[in-house]
Amino acid sequence: MEKYIEHFKGDRFATTNGIYIVECEPGYAKAAVEIGPDHLNGAGVVHGGLLFPLADFAFAVAVNTYGKVTLSVSTSMSYFDKSTEGIIYAEARELSRSNKLIHCDVLVKHESGSLLASFKGTAYITSKDITF
Amino acid sequence: MEKYIEHFKGDRFATTNGIYIVECEPGYAKAAVEIGPDHLNGAGVVHGGLLFPLADFAFAVAVNTYGKVTLSVSTSMSYFDKSTEGIIYAEARELSRSNKLIHCDVLVKHESGSLLASFKGTAYITSKDITF
Amino acid sequence: MEKYIEHFKGDRFATTNGIYIVECEPGYAKAAVEIGPDHLNGAGVVHGGLLFPLADFAFAVAVNTYGKVTLSVSTSMSYFDKSTEGIIYAEARELSRSNKLIHCDVLVKHESGSLLASFKGTAYITSKDITF
Amino acid sequence: MEKYIEHFKGDRFATTNGIYIVECEPGYAKAAVEIGPDHLNGAGVVHGGLLFPLADFAFAVAVNTYGKVTLSVSTSMSYFDKSTEGIIYAEARELSRSNKLIHCDVLVKHESGSLLASFKGTAYITSKDITF
Repeated sequence: MEKYIEHFKGDRFATTNGIYIVECEPGYAKAAVEIGPDHLNGAGVVHGGLLFPLADFAFAVAVNTYGKVTLSVSTSMSYFDKSTEGIIYAEARELSRSNKLIHCDVLVKHESGSLLASFKGTAYITSKDITF
Repeated sequence: MEKYIEHFKGDRFATTNGIYIVECEPGYAKAAVEIGPDHLNGAGVVHGGLLFPLADFAFAVAVNTYGKVTLSVSTSMSYFDKSTEGIIYAEARELSRSNKLIHCDVLVKHESGSLLASFKGTAYITSKDITF
Repeated sequence: MEKYIEHFKGDRFATTNGIYIVECEPGYAKAAVEIGPDHLNGAGVVHGGLLFPLADFAFAVAVNTYGKVTLSVSTSMSYFDKSTEGIIYAEARELSRSNKLIHCDVLVKHESGSLLASFKGTAYITSKDITF
Repeated sequence: MEKYIEHFKGDRFATTNGIYIVECEPGYAKAAVEIGPDHLNGAGVVHGGLLFPLADFAFAVAVNTYGKVTLSVSTSMSYFDKSTEGIIYAEARELSRSNKLIHCDVLVKHESGSLLASFKGTAYITSKDITF
C-alpha cells in the first residue's frame, strides 16, 4: 500500500491543511492531522472546516485503494465534540461494496479517544484504473 | 450586514482556500471562490474538497447572521458535476428555524449556471451573542 | 404518465398507509396522504414515521418515470414542524441526473403551506426496463 | 426497561408493519420484523420502505429510553443489500450525547448476518418527561 500513500501524498488540498495518511489497505484508511494555530477559529477551538476534509480524505483513500478511480457521490457528517490541541485521527472503513457503489463509515477521534464526529460516504466505482 | 462580512473575513480556514462572502442577510449567505491552480487535482478538475468548505462556509454565515453563536450539528452533501475554471458560488437559504435549531439548503453552482453540488445543514442556536 | 400512476398504485406499502400519487412526469412526482387516526402518535400529532414513506414514495416515483428500474442508494431527511390533521404533500424534483445516478430534493408540506420536512435522495439507474 | 418495551408496543405505526422491540436500554435498542407477503414489492424482494421504519423505530426507542421526550431532527440512510425472507434486525447505538442532542448509528442486518442498510440519526432532547 506504500504506492497509495505516496500517491495521495501528492494531494495538494490535504497537504495544505496538514492532513496525511497514516495507513491504508483496500477498503480502509486512517488519516491524521496535528492541530496547529491555523486550524483554530476565533474562539480557540478547532475549526469545523478541518474535520470534514480529514474525514473526506480518509474516505477517498479507502475507496480508491482497490485500484479503480472512485468518485464521491454523497456524504453526511455529524459533529459531536470540540478539541483545542493534539492529534486528530479519521478512520474510514468499508461497510458495503457492490460492482458500482461503495459505502464507508468514518469515525473522527481525538488522540485522547474522544469521538469528535461521524461521517458516512457513498462513492461510485468507475471502470478507469488509477495510474501512478 | 457589512459587520458580518468583515467578521467572517477573519475566518482563516476560508481565506486560506480563497473563499469569500459575496453577500449575506439573516438566514441567507452567498459565498464564492475563483478556481485557481491550487484547487485542481491531478486530473485537472476542481478538487471535491473545495466544494464542501465553500458550501459549509455559506451555511455557517447564513445561520450566524441572527447574532447568536450557532453551531453545526449535521450536514450532508451530494456531488453532481465537475468544473475546471471560473468562479463557483454557494448560496445558503434557511428552510426552517425554531428557537434552537435552524436548517438550510445550499446550492453550489458554477458561474455558467450548472449545478455542481447540493448541501443540507442543521445547526444549533446557542444563547451566546456573537461579539465583533 | 397515467400508466406510471396505475403502476405505483399497486405499491402495497404506500397504499397500506393511505399514500397516493397526485401527479408525475419524468423527474417529478407529487404524493399525498390525508391524516387519519392511524397516523397519530400517543400525543395526537402525526407520527414521524409517516413523513418518510411519503417523501420516499414521491422520490421513488420521480426517479422511476424515465422507464428504467432505479434503486435508492442513500437518502436523508430533516424534520421541521408538526401537523395534526388535513392533507400532507410531498413534491420530488430532480436536481441532477447522469447515466447512472439521479439526485432529487423532496419538500414535505402541509396543505396550509407550512414546511414539515425536507428530504434528499440519490438513486442508481439500472439498465433494466420497468415493465407494466 | 420492560416499561419502555410495553410503552413502545403501543406505537401503531410500527405494529401495523409488524415491527417490534427485542430489547432496549438507555442509548440502545434492537428492533425486529419478520418478512411477510405484505413487505414484498412486485419483484418479490423486501420493499425499501420497510427498512427505514425499522431503523427509525430502533433509533426512536434508543434515544427515548433516558426518560425525556426526544424528537428526531435529521436522519440519513444508505441501502446495501436485498432480502426476500426471514427476520431483519435493526440495532441502534448511541454515538454521542450532550444536554440537548443525541446521535445514533443503526445497522440493519438480515438474520443471516448480511448488512442490509446503515442509518444515522440526530435527535433533540426536550425537558419533558416521558409518561407511562
